[in-house]
Amino acid sequence: MNSTFINSLGFIAAILTTGGLIPQLIKIIKTKSVADISFEMFVMFLVGVTCWFIYGILIKSPPVIAANFISMLVNSTILYYKFKYE
Amino acid sequence: MNSTFINSLGFIAAILTTGGLIPQLIKIIKTKSVADISFEMFVMFLVGVTCWFIYGILIKSPPVIAANFISMLVNSTILYYKFKYE
Repeated sequence: MNSTFINSLGFIAAILTTGGLIPQLIKIIKTKSVADISFEMFVMFLVGVTCWFIYGILIKSPPVIAANFISMLVNSTILYYKFKYE
Repeated sequence: MNSTFINSLGFIAAILTTGGLIPQLIKIIKTKSVADISFEMFVMFLVGVTCWFIYGILIKSPPVIAANFISMLVNSTILYYKFKYE
């Protein structure tokens, strides 16, 4: 299998799983409603992406560092609104 | 840096970002309420974890395959309930 194809697939995967948090954040800002959102899910995600971020630094992987840094920011903002609107 | 520590950190990160979907699924089953959950988020996640799953097969990484296979199942179930209860 062509390694460019494999790396592109990993890159697309990273964009989707990182970027997926953004429509959730937009929905919260628009509706100001967070009742159905699991607090535990976003706490586990925040700790998880922070671990991925540190892991990325230790293995010196810029895509892992960048993707998870963005996820940390978006995830923290979702948790802020979860506290604010609940 | 000790490679056992680095791998353990990656393993903890994988458990948290995969397992994080489970409290959201439990909340949906308990409350039967999905209005605040972003459809777009879980579609992007599902396509994303499917890409990670195929990526895992191509790079022959059992943890990437296993974690994303579980995420595909939980994510699909969340989307099923999103359609059912909305």
